[in-house]
Amino acid sequence: MANVDKKTLEEQIKIQGEIVRKLKAEKADKDKVTEEVNKLLELKKQHGDNGPKKFVLKTPKGTRDFTPEQMAIREGVFDKIISCFKRHGAETIDTPVFELKETLTGKYGEDSKLIYDLADQGGELLSLRYDLTVPFARYLAMNKVSNIKRYHIAKVYRRDNPAMNRGRFREFYQCDFDIAGQYDPMLPDAECIKIVVEILSSLDIGDFVIKVNHRKLLDGMFAVCGVPDDKFRAICSTVDKLDKTFWDDVRDEMINEKGLDSEAADMIGEYVQFKGGLDLVNELLKDKNLTTKKNAVEALEEIKLLLTYCEAYNVSDKVCFDMSLARGLDYYTGVIYEAVLTAHSHQASASGEENVGVGSVAGGGRYDGLVGMFDSKGKKVPCVGVSIGIERLFSIMEAKALAAAKKVRTTETEVYVIAAQKGMVEERLKLCNALWDADVKTEQSYKKNTKMLSEFQYCEQNGIPLAAIIGQSEIETGVVKLKIIGSREERDVPRSDIVQEIRNMLASLKIGKESTSGN
Amino acid sequence: MANVDKKTLEEQIKIQGEIVRKLKAEKADKDKVTEEVNKLLELKKQHGDNGPKKFVLKTPKGTRDFTPEQMAIREGVFDKIISCFKRHGAETIDTPVFELKETLTGKYGEDSKLIYDLADQGGELLSLRYDLTVPFARYLAMNKVSNIKRYHIAKVYRRDNPAMNRGRFREFYQCDFDIAGQYDPMLPDAECIKIVVEILSSLDIGDFVIKVNHRKLLDGMFAVCGVPDDKFRAICSTVDKLDKTFWDDVRDEMINEKGLDSEAADMIGEYVQFKGGLDLVNELLKDKNLTTKKNAVEALEEIKLLLTYCEAYNVSDKVCFDMSLARGLDYYTGVIYEAVLTAHSHQASASGEENVGVGSVAGGGRYDGLVGMFDSKGKKVPCVGVSIGIERLFSIMEAKALAAAKKVRTTETEVYVIAAQKGMVEERLKLCNALWDADVKTEQSYKKNTKMLSEFQYCEQNGIPLAAIIGQSEIETGVVKLKIIGSREERDVPRSDIVQEIRNMLASLKIGKESTSGN
Repeated sequence: MANVDKKTLEEQIKIQGEIVRKLKAEKADKDKVTEEVNKLLELKKQHGDNGPKKFVLKTPKGTRDFTPEQMAIREGVFDKIISCFKRHGAETIDTPVFELKETLTGKYGEDSKLIYDLADQGGELLSLRYDLTVPFARYLAMNKVSNIKRYHIAKVYRRDNPAMNRGRFREFYQCDFDIAGQYDPMLPDAECIKIVVEILSSLDIGDFVIKVNHRKLLDGMFAVCGVPDDKFRAICSTVDKLDKTFWDDVRDEMINEKGLDSEAADMIGEYVQFKGGLDLVNELLKDKNLTTKKNAVEALEEIKLLLTYCEAYNVSDKVCFDMSLARGLDYYTGVIYEAVLTAHSHQASASGEENVGVGSVAGGGRYDGLVGMFDSKGKKVPCVGVSIGIERLFSIMEAKALAAAKKVRTTETEVYVIAAQKGMVEERLKLCNALWDADVKTEQSYKKNTKMLSEFQYCEQNGIPLAAIIGQSEIETGVVKLKIIGSREERDVPRSDIVQEIRNMLASLKIGKESTSGN
Repeated sequence: MANVDKKTLEEQIKIQGEIVRKLKAEKADKDKVTEEVNKLLELKKQHGDNGPKKFVLKTPKGTRDFTPEQMAIREGVFDKIISCFKRHGAETIDTPVFELKETLTGKYGEDSKLIYDLADQGGELLSLRYDLTVPFARYLAMNKVSNIKRYHIAKVYRRDNPAMNRGRFREFYQCDFDIAGQYDPMLPDAECIKIVVEILSSLDIGDFVIKVNHRKLLDGMFAVCGVPDDKFRAICSTVDKLDKTFWDDVRDEMINEKGLDSEAADMIGEYVQFKGGLDLVNELLKDKNLTTKKNAVEALEEIKLLLTYCEAYNVSDKVCFDMSLARGLDYYTGVIYEAVLTAHSHQASASGEENVGVGSVAGGGRYDGLVGMFDSKGKKVPCVGVSIGIERLFSIMEAKALAAAKKVRTTETEVYVIAAQKGMVEERLKLCNALWDADVKTEQSYKKNTKMLSEFQYCEQNGIPLAAIIGQSEIETGVVKLKIIGSREERDVPRSDIVQEIRNMLASLKIGKESTSGN
């Protein structure tokens, strides 16, 4: 019945479409055209309601599926990052993908317009999380947690203009490590930097540098340069653009858009050129202007201590005190840092990913006020943390895999079970069962009868190292034929020894692989 | 300024509140009361707009945070499940948390009202995913994938009435394994059942049984019993309630709500009592009524083959052909199954979790038509899969951990670095650094100066097995004192041997633990 209706309707739409086209071609009376167009729209609407749906086969704008190949690369990156977090004794927590809308309100400044809201279907007003830091602060305040070292890897959502080919998505992973608690200066901060070095070094993505600065030093510098108090944040965001654009443009913006006088701008221009290590800090501690500002001196003392700890952690060569580093977010109150790939600077500058800047693959800092915003008594929990720019790292790893033109294995299958003759399905199932029960990663065809040759080809294509073959003669003699796919070497093994023999073969293949790959 | 305004406003609200209370107490003229109440509301509104926000510190209805303890338990369960999926050669994919609204439309029947929609902020209309099966089907059709064996573990969203203390949430994990492809009968289906057995056996949650039935057998049975064609689905949902309620109630619903005649209902009542194995299948293959229906005979032959394969997989003792099993979802087209804990039947019957039924911890079946719904030419990709009821499993594991009153370790820290005297921070950092670089899981205090005793207590409380102690004398003699926290045994070890010695100690502690725990 529905089918007949639909056909008639489709024909009607076709005819009505012809009418509209004819009228338009004739440049007929406008009202007449509108009338017939409305009829057409009405028919189309009916069709949409009654007929089978025609699906637009796509994922929402700015989002994507992950294929098994992409997931295998992700898993590799996650494993390395998580094992670093665990090496440093971190716990993990999880929070819901959406929060009460008011939990997110007033935390992201101008960017709040990028927050995804849920429809009001009755009940609470909800929004998708925009980052992991605000939910973390809400978690600490709500559960009265005053110290924790935790990591959280989860997806966040931003209604930003997606640039998918440059790695900017509306749904993307964040990977955060934070230390909350009232501790002695710079000890947690230095560990965050050490963690960034460990993670980036483990990923083999080339050279990098971690820029370090301090929000209070920026504030002191602005005061010294004559920036009015109420322009600190605005001028700070302008300075933040220094890693993406030239000083002249930044100066222009300060003067023409933010209304700063040119003397102040030029003085800032002097300071933001400073980059260095302990020597620079010691020099600035003698700067007759900066030293008039208490917060600037405090900040310099903290940076000095941080750099000393970085030396003990043997990461000094990766760390650079850089007075041009500002970072976008409002909530930072102390040390800030950002890791930048030095080898990828060109590739990265084309991408312009926000939050972690250009070429930036990790960033963070100290935010001692955020948790207090959620506490009814304003009780503060000092926090410092780092966010690993994991989507950027994925992109780099994917590009590397592509360039290597090496097939990414998406399964870990060790043995493929093959029957030598037809009619041996149950024997195959029994052998698979024995191997699974012994925790050997095993697959077989879901076809009842298979051709040996194509089965071997399947193993080759999918990087499965071993085949276990059973035929009538093997069953009669109580053996299984084990074949090494790579070398075509094969050997009959008694059923009782099969698991042990597979383990030995896998171990020798692994050792062989390692010694030939030159590691 | 804002503060002053706010104070005044708060006082005004207080005074206005008093006025309203007084009028109400006096039972004053209704209009007068309304007028003053409106003034109060207006003031409160102003307050809300201008004053600092007072946060409601909660997660959205039906959702929760996960503490490190809960996450540690989750991780343990996930590890076991994922290693089973990998043992069977499965890949993994990921899809966005939201889909185009129309992708989900028309897939869930009545339950569609439980779908979360996103607000219309311009652009596409989006909904949060309701399960992982429909996105999987969309993925296959969109990417023209005609065969894959994949697992997907991710959160799904349902605006259901939450019953958090009984494990029903609005945000919860699903954990799906599916085999898509045109294969020989029952080979993928049997592997799904084998996987359920492996997973449930690995989790130590007591005895279970996997009920098996077939949608076509139900259809044939309904036809034989005289159920009109257009009532098949409705009667099927009523039969699905048999695991939660008594036959008499089910019979009532069939007759009084669904309008079935009592003879048909009684005949169904006979069939749904059948439970058994191969013998029962063979008996039913001689049933003079059922054998008149082609689809019933086909279904029985498939079940027969499935049970034969289950024997080869050595899981027959866990599988029970049960003609009362119906399962809720419309899209099943073949074999269906559901795993039920037999030891937990009482606890479970209080919970009534949907999707996987009462006491149910896994469920699934064959759905050969779903992917075709997304293909413009209706090209079908046969699928069979299973969804592990992971939230239920978490609840059981959490309850077990609670009952065991054993502290769940939330970190994996192996060594805690302690200074014997004040002023040794940098020495501590250097030692930590050496251990981290050797991949030893190491922590230390973030306090500059610590007390040894409280540091040892910290280790005990957090299950950290070893302490590495450095003092002036250790530094002078080039050693580190290693202490086993449990036995208080300690020993000076040369700096160059420290990593190896820690590894040895950890290995011996692990062996000691295993041999004393009696496993």
